[in-house]
Amino acid sequence: MEMMENLQKIARQCGEIMLSAEDIERNITEKEGQKNFVTKYDVLVQKTLQKELLSLYPEAHFYGEEDGQQDDVHSGMAFIVDPIDGTTNFIKGYRVSVVSIGVAKDGEIICGVVYDPYTDTMYHAEKGKGAYVNGKRVYVSDCSLANSMVCVGTAPYYAEYTDRTFALARALFDNALDLRRSGSAALDLCAVGCGRADLMTEWVVCPWDFAAAKCIIEEAGGIMTQIDGSPMKLDGKCSILAGGKRAHAEFFEKGLHKI
Amino acid sequence: MEMMENLQKIARQCGEIMLSAEDIERNITEKEGQKNFVTKYDVLVQKTLQKELLSLYPEAHFYGEEDGQQDDVHSGMAFIVDPIDGTTNFIKGYRVSVVSIGVAKDGEIICGVVYDPYTDTMYHAEKGKGAYVNGKRVYVSDCSLANSMVCVGTAPYYAEYTDRTFALARALFDNALDLRRSGSAALDLCAVGCGRADLMTEWVVCPWDFAAAKCIIEEAGGIMTQIDGSPMKLDGKCSILAGGKRAHAEFFEKGLHKI
Repeated sequence: MEMMENLQKIARQCGEIMLSAEDIERNITEKEGQKNFVTKYDVLVQKTLQKELLSLYPEAHFYGEEDGQQDDVHSGMAFIVDPIDGTTNFIKGYRVSVVSIGVAKDGEIICGVVYDPYTDTMYHAEKGKGAYVNGKRVYVSDCSLANSMVCVGTAPYYAEYTDRTFALARALFDNALDLRRSGSAALDLCAVGCGRADLMTEWVVCPWDFAAAKCIIEEAGGIMTQIDGSPMKLDGKCSILAGGKRAHAEFFEKGLHKI
Repeated sequence: MEMMENLQKIARQCGEIMLSAEDIERNITEKEGQKNFVTKYDVLVQKTLQKELLSLYPEAHFYGEEDGQQDDVHSGMAFIVDPIDGTTNFIKGYRVSVVSIGVAKDGEIICGVVYDPYTDTMYHAEKGKGAYVNGKRVYVSDCSLANSMVCVGTAPYYAEYTDRTFALARALFDNALDLRRSGSAALDLCAVGCGRADLMTEWVVCPWDFAAAKCIIEEAGGIMTQIDGSPMKLDGKCSILAGGKRAHAEFFEKGLHKI
């Protein structure tokens, strides 16, 4: 079986675990209880990913959100996974969370799968082979910044970025069409990848948030950089600005990267 | 047939029209073309609502977004409808839009149906009979403000509210868990109504945005007022603050209504 078929099969398996959490024990009001709840499913999905991926590709590195294990992603093959992207949504039962599997080869993302179990939507791309939503070829928009719907992240775990988050959100609101905030960076990037939104930005993301989607955005004809225009980093936190090339360029022309 | 069955059947019929727009002519880049596209479907859905609802209840007033017709909603029976709530999302193909049908009797909302065709989710409530999602009884959360996920609207058509929108969003971000912005007020209110989000606010909404959801929120045990605590208005624009009673009360205790 091709790698892409394997990844999609594994992503669907993880989606079933996410759906199985529906209403079982979600009415938890204390933060501690919520943390245990989400950790349980995050760990369960990550263990499934690790087991299934490494049984098929035992030579690969595995780089997931939940265990902090950061094998070298710059040599050989590496899986960079987010078991549940959109964990606050998952806790709340908001039904906006995805599983994300990126594949790097010698430090370059060559393949990405993002699966949204709530709408049964599979986003995938392979380097050189295009980006797809449920098997249909998709492209980023060629929208101007002024006519762009912009997905913004709030970097909620990094209070030192809150001022800049709101300054940038306001500048984007003033220079674009409107803002969206779904709470899942990977899903936002997929929305941009298939032209359903036009630009996505956040001050702090981790490699597992964007690894899979980077391949999807690029194969859809888009571009993903940091907010200052520099390349993304696979071995630590960085900022993100992804979208169609026109809106991405106009972001810099308008000086929004200096916010 | 009961009124509720009729409303749901009509809402599903409208949902089919919304889905039929998928990819037909959405790749429109100029604003004028987009406006025509959305107007076409908005009008098509509204005409369907008007025809079907008034054929069943010819004595009722009909109060819809698209024609600006504002019959008296304070006497007798009135339908207050939003054919496509989330029109920017609809234009972009973001797949986050709903049809909303509220029923008022002598100025009080007695029944509400909101249908999301993209996830095939039916939200409904009748006064005194509870709130439901796909037939399952639901309730608002009893979440504290600090632990609340807050859906915010940006009042994008009212530039005079932009400063207050961002001031309130920042205050909520600092006092709650995180923000969400879906671009559909009716859908945000339904998310709150079934406890998937905890609070919703926007500086400017119209009656058709919240009419159906008001019944859903209240039958789910929640509360909907303006941001200053005053009652909602069915005959003009107003602000909105809706959620569980605990988060709603804490909003005022924290002085956020003075932003």
